[in-house]
Amino acid sequence: MTALIPAGPVSWPDGKTCAVAFTFDVDAESPLLTTDPAFADRMGSMSHQAYGPLVGIPRLLGILDDLQVPATFFVPGYTAHRHPEPIRSLVTAGHEIAHHGYLHESLVGVDEATERAYLQRGMDALVEVTGVTPVGYRAPMWEMNWHTPKLLAEFGFLYDSTLMDSDHPYELAVTDGESLVELPVSWALDDWQQYCFVPDFSVGMIETPAKAIELYRSELDAMREVGGAWILTNHPFLSGRPGRAAALREFIADVAAMDDVWIASMAQIAEHVRAQQLTPRTLTRPEFTPTVRSIDR
Amino acid sequence: MTALIPAGPVSWPDGKTCAVAFTFDVDAESPLLTTDPAFADRMGSMSHQAYGPLVGIPRLLGILDDLQVPATFFVPGYTAHRHPEPIRSLVTAGHEIAHHGYLHESLVGVDEATERAYLQRGMDALVEVTGVTPVGYRAPMWEMNWHTPKLLAEFGFLYDSTLMDSDHPYELAVTDGESLVELPVSWALDDWQQYCFVPDFSVGMIETPAKAIELYRSELDAMREVGGAWILTNHPFLSGRPGRAAALREFIADVAAMDDVWIASMAQIAEHVRAQQLTPRTLTRPEFTPTVRSIDR
Amino acid sequence: MTALIPAGPVSWPDGKTCAVAFTFDVDAESPLLTTDPAFADRMGSMSHQAYGPLVGIPRLLGILDDLQVPATFFVPGYTAHRHPEPIRSLVTAGHEIAHHGYLHESLVGVDEATERAYLQRGMDALVEVTGVTPVGYRAPMWEMNWHTPKLLAEFGFLYDSTLMDSDHPYELAVTDGESLVELPVSWALDDWQQYCFVPDFSVGMIETPAKAIELYRSELDAMREVGGAWILTNHPFLSGRPGRAAALREFIADVAAMDDVWIASMAQIAEHVRAQQLTPRTLTRPEFTPTVRSIDR
Amino acid sequence: MTALIPAGPVSWPDGKTCAVAFTFDVDAESPLLTTDPAFADRMGSMSHQAYGPLVGIPRLLGILDDLQVPATFFVPGYTAHRHPEPIRSLVTAGHEIAHHGYLHESLVGVDEATERAYLQRGMDALVEVTGVTPVGYRAPMWEMNWHTPKLLAEFGFLYDSTLMDSDHPYELAVTDGESLVELPVSWALDDWQQYCFVPDFSVGMIETPAKAIELYRSELDAMREVGGAWILTNHPFLSGRPGRAAALREFIADVAAMDDVWIASMAQIAEHVRAQQLTPRTLTRPEFTPTVRSIDR
Repeated sequence: MTALIPAGPVSWPDGKTCAVAFTFDVDAESPLLTTDPAFADRMGSMSHQAYGPLVGIPRLLGILDDLQVPATFFVPGYTAHRHPEPIRSLVTAGHEIAHHGYLHESLVGVDEATERAYLQRGMDALVEVTGVTPVGYRAPMWEMNWHTPKLLAEFGFLYDSTLMDSDHPYELAVTDGESLVELPVSWALDDWQQYCFVPDFSVGMIETPAKAIELYRSELDAMREVGGAWILTNHPFLSGRPGRAAALREFIADVAAMDDVWIASMAQIAEHVRAQQLTPRTLTRPEFTPTVRSIDR
Repeated sequence: MTALIPAGPVSWPDGKTCAVAFTFDVDAESPLLTTDPAFADRMGSMSHQAYGPLVGIPRLLGILDDLQVPATFFVPGYTAHRHPEPIRSLVTAGHEIAHHGYLHESLVGVDEATERAYLQRGMDALVEVTGVTPVGYRAPMWEMNWHTPKLLAEFGFLYDSTLMDSDHPYELAVTDGESLVELPVSWALDDWQQYCFVPDFSVGMIETPAKAIELYRSELDAMREVGGAWILTNHPFLSGRPGRAAALREFIADVAAMDDVWIASMAQIAEHVRAQQLTPRTLTRPEFTPTVRSIDR
Repeated sequence: MTALIPAGPVSWPDGKTCAVAFTFDVDAESPLLTTDPAFADRMGSMSHQAYGPLVGIPRLLGILDDLQVPATFFVPGYTAHRHPEPIRSLVTAGHEIAHHGYLHESLVGVDEATERAYLQRGMDALVEVTGVTPVGYRAPMWEMNWHTPKLLAEFGFLYDSTLMDSDHPYELAVTDGESLVELPVSWALDDWQQYCFVPDFSVGMIETPAKAIELYRSELDAMREVGGAWILTNHPFLSGRPGRAAALREFIADVAAMDDVWIASMAQIAEHVRAQQLTPRTLTRPEFTPTVRSIDR
Repeated sequence: MTALIPAGPVSWPDGKTCAVAFTFDVDAESPLLTTDPAFADRMGSMSHQAYGPLVGIPRLLGILDDLQVPATFFVPGYTAHRHPEPIRSLVTAGHEIAHHGYLHESLVGVDEATERAYLQRGMDALVEVTGVTPVGYRAPMWEMNWHTPKLLAEFGFLYDSTLMDSDHPYELAVTDGESLVELPVSWALDDWQQYCFVPDFSVGMIETPAKAIELYRSELDAMREVGGAWILTNHPFLSGRPGRAAALREFIADVAAMDDVWIASMAQIAEHVRAQQLTPRTLTRPEFTPTVRSIDR
């Protein structure tokens, strides 16, 4: 079994010691529809999800504009089809658009050909609606297959943002000598676990904005010591709500005032990492003999 | 695919910048009975739910009276049948009664004829017990069908309060040129997720009243900037408990002292919105091709 | 349908305005064993539950003794059989022992004859191990049947503590003109929802003792205004842990210093209520026509 | 039925009044793979788990080294096979390695022969990778069988750390006059319940580091009064994240400064307990007649 090698440190521009990216997964209706098409019949749930592009995006754009902070929006193709104006407004405001599947399709157990079709469909939708070809990808549900990186390279992506095995970005080796920049995420830096409540879909606790921000802040303060990339993921249908957006605004303003932090789009971070010509890391599927159970009764 | 248009701003009376409604879903026994009729055999669970009309309502009425604040009670018809005196006391105290199904029936997947029967049964019960014909409706579980607005118009309702795609009330287009005022809700403004624990029915965490109120307050403070309608939903069987009611009293008193806030019943808010002759919004069922999965194994 | 009448106020001795009972459900192994007998094979889970009588009870007895506070322990008969010394120590220390089933059997859907057998078995075990005939009962899982009160009267119980429809104790009417004193509980006053984590059995969050105590305190402070009986339920296998017991000690000491509060055993409270010759309340099973669903698809 | 006897007090060296062990369960990929081998196909989940050995372990070793605190790492054999360098680094740094199954196999319902094979496989892997023969064992999922202690004695283990029925370590009687030192754990002293979120595997809340540390601290402060052994369990894939590790560092520093506390490895504590020649406790499987339910309907 080939042992895994951890990612090494990376340097940041202008003497900064930590990179920060504010990212938004603009899921809207898609995660529900891909889980069960019958969710389309639920007018209430659909309205809850539509809040993201309809209300959350304009509000969040206002905050980002006020604070002059760049952000990256991972957009399922279907969101672009159903909500073209909000998605185009992201581009108009100068933010980055990245790929997040077409219908937020789970990739668990999906074969390569099917996954390629999802990628193509998502890509086509983003290009069609925004005219922009995304350079970044994040897998729906933050889960992908061992064949996914090869597919992403095939589509010409510069970076992926799905994996969770590092505080530092790295070059992820792909078959045939190619590589992708990997910008890792963390479940602790996701508003879903703090706020998401949708009956029959995802029913967690609803925390206060103060608690969510305290969680993000504790990780950021430590990441500034670590020197990695701190990548926050919010969902406009959740963090676009007034109280949460107000708390996020205050937090982003605090971060923007930190001298040691480089706030950038994911593409900017990926380009900066790419330029460092890091040796690609090879990740391998675990080899193991499954547990055999011989039960007493 | 027709794109959705977000709701626009609305104005509030007397220079107020935010509307506030304190609403109560008087579910009592009905959500359990509609989920599984065998809950009727559970004397403990039934007593837990009956706390709402028996103890919660008088306590909450006392608070509202002390603070001279109007409120709106969404009452399943069955609650009126089982607890007529508490429900009549709401009317006597001058509060608004609105429709919340008969037995808190889930509308998920329910056809139009069946749903019409639920509406009729709930309406008949409220009129029979209170003599009042409600002008407002909120769907049980905050979930409804695309055919629901047409049915609500058919029954002559002025407003609905089920959807979640806006901070601002709006006119919701119904087929045949009619419209309903929509007064949107939010899962963050619901005591259920903070307090509800009923074995085999709904088993979440039980939070402190201070945490619940902090959550509500953070959303209200931000909504005052946004200028929308902040609509809180409490359940008498939950928020009628002594400690929660005491915390709610203190919070309502704080809100009543806010100069910029218009506290009103849902009907008053709906009438005020109706008078602004807003262009109705058309909401559409998502059109999409369901995900096809071709699995590797 | 006969409407329910809420319980009225009760008076407390010596000018006190609120009654307080510290109760402990000494479940130990029984809830797991009754749920699935195979839990008996899990040495780890069994040790987790045994912590209650082995370590929790001596520690809690020490606290109660230090603070000179009486308490009531609801003991499944099986706990007395498996842990006779800890259970006898409760009696020796002068505390009340009450009935909590034999194996913490769920009463959901159980017929009268079976339930009578559970009651007999639990009663026999308590008498056999402690020599004490309990006068109080609390149903396992705080759930009972409409025939349960009659059975409790048949066994000569003075009080029950299972229902949740009142802040004030009351006389619960039983068929044949008899009645039981009901001492109501509340899910907000139970350590289970704050602390219980047992894999494959009950997997909630584990909160800090400070949060649990804050919750209890908020309800107590309000109940002192209400004038009812505030009845706290802890489980020795949970609240007997060092940090939780220390927090509970501090809280009990605070309560013991409250001039307006009468701390008493459940039997003392029940006797005090009985002496007031209250009119018994009749609780009735909900009558209703179950929801008929006609589904669109 | 033989009644259980609680563990008695133990003494600690050098006038210390409480023993503290910082332990880490280095689960990495194994709990997912043993639950469902198809998790191996999930590159995202695998990367989330690999964070533990790749990033968490170096960070935690740095903290332990800075503070000069010994720790014990419970390592599934498969983790040693997949991540040999991180596991060897634990030994190099002078920390204790202990046994935690091979693939973190659940022992629930597993017969003796199968369990012996798990033990052998885990032992072989640890010896092969580190050259060290572990003297301690902790069962995966903190659950074991009544035949497990005999197997552990057969393998020559000095101690086990799986049970939960005491604040104080004790000698656990094994058949044939042998015994094992038991170093008990507590679900309140485990980072899993505070931080673990892995889709389709374990989906709890994600708490702030401050809340987790407050929980640990409340139990430690009380354990110092009790005089037992306070044993904390963290998982490098969880508590190795920057913000959590920073909070843990601060907490460990606080503990290291407590005059009354003896921080030691589990092996050191076990040896110290063994030297006290305590009378072994006999734990017995509960004997009971399962509940017979006769249902009304």
